[in-house]
Amino acid sequence: MSDLIVWTYDWVPEGPRGFVRDLRLRWACEEAGLAYSVRTIPFDRRETNHLSRQPFGQVPFLSDGALEMFESGAGLLHLARKSETLMPRDPAGEADTVQWIIAALNSIEMVSVPWWFLEISGAKDNGLAGWLGSRLDHVERVLDAREWLAADRFTAADLLMADVLRVPKVRAFGDRPATEAYVARVTGRPAFEKARADQLAHFAAADQSRSAAGG
Amino acid sequence: MSDLIVWTYDWVPEGPRGFVRDLRLRWACEEAGLAYSVRTIPFDRRETNHLSRQPFGQVPFLSDGALEMFESGAGLLHLARKSETLMPRDPAGEADTVQWIIAALNSIEMVSVPWWFLEISGAKDNGLAGWLGSRLDHVERVLDAREWLAADRFTAADLLMADVLRVPKVRAFGDRPATEAYVARVTGRPAFEKARADQLAHFAAADQSRSAAGG
Repeated sequence: MSDLIVWTYDWVPEGPRGFVRDLRLRWACEEAGLAYSVRTIPFDRRETNHLSRQPFGQVPFLSDGALEMFESGAGLLHLARKSETLMPRDPAGEADTVQWIIAALNSIEMVSVPWWFLEISGAKDNGLAGWLGSRLDHVERVLDAREWLAADRFTAADLLMADVLRVPKVRAFGDRPATEAYVARVTGRPAFEKARADQLAHFAAADQSRSAAGG
Repeated sequence: MSDLIVWTYDWVPEGPRGFVRDLRLRWACEEAGLAYSVRTIPFDRRETNHLSRQPFGQVPFLSDGALEMFESGAGLLHLARKSETLMPRDPAGEADTVQWIIAALNSIEMVSVPWWFLEISGAKDNGLAGWLGSRLDHVERVLDAREWLAADRFTAADLLMADVLRVPKVRAFGDRPATEAYVARVTGRPAFEKARADQLAHFAAADQSRSAAGG
């Protein structure tokens, strides 16, 4: 029995399946060989139902024994400190990994997610498009010169950056071959496939429960 | 002579002065009593001139002896691990601080900065306004119930969240009294005043050098 628990919704609609951020924590545990279980909170009334555990009403959060933390980025940093597979133990390798984890969250996702939000809102003239293109160009330049973001090896920074970049609309934003190859390389890892398949199965099983409850 | 070096631009226009993110690292060093020096890279040609040290052409970055890291959030995490003033040493206090640091970067600033970007771009109907209002409401609810974000004391998470929230347009977004009192409380700390005054003096001195060079 593991002390690590990844908390996610009991159910979500089709659209976000395969992209709910509990996948980041599942994937990290799979890479590191860390035993974990998955527990759920209700999707219904999520805006107000679990604010004491996640102040923005979102998922995931992570339990590790008595510790509990929200924000997938914080959970990922916590897991990275538990496993050298996710982050090197030497100070230079650690600093390199952490800076790219933060870059994924605050330099790329800070532009790509609001851009995507405006896109799905039906914005005709997306005011963030130029900025997103510039950021993706910078990432392309980095990935054109090397295989992994940090420490010359796979780290939790690649896991997170690939998860940020694999969103279909972001991938479709432009022809960036090094980035495309990178996303394919990182998401081709067995731990990603396992985590994604497990998330899809989790929500598919919830469909059956909902259907049975309604029938 | 300190090993800690905060790198920033040699000069910036009036607009961003007092808000350039080297302030986050100066402030953290001042809070923690960590000796540091400030060095500069040219503002001119920043888009391409220092990509080997900051892959998005931005500042700040932080040197600590042989270590160098970009992303102000990564620098802040690094400094927080050096000083209990910035982050408690117990696992629960550390997890609480880290989750709120990431929340400032990836749940608040991920919305507030793109919203502000659209505002200064002259967007007539800012498509991110509703989302920003919702996020700020969640923060208001948290701050209405307690004085500090994490661990019942000032931490690096307050430093960062207050820096994110003090942007004038974000503060003007709505009447949220607990948030307003929080920003006033955190930015009323002497270490913030010192860091801000030092940044303003740094860029003012650069005006004189530019003027002398031109004269």
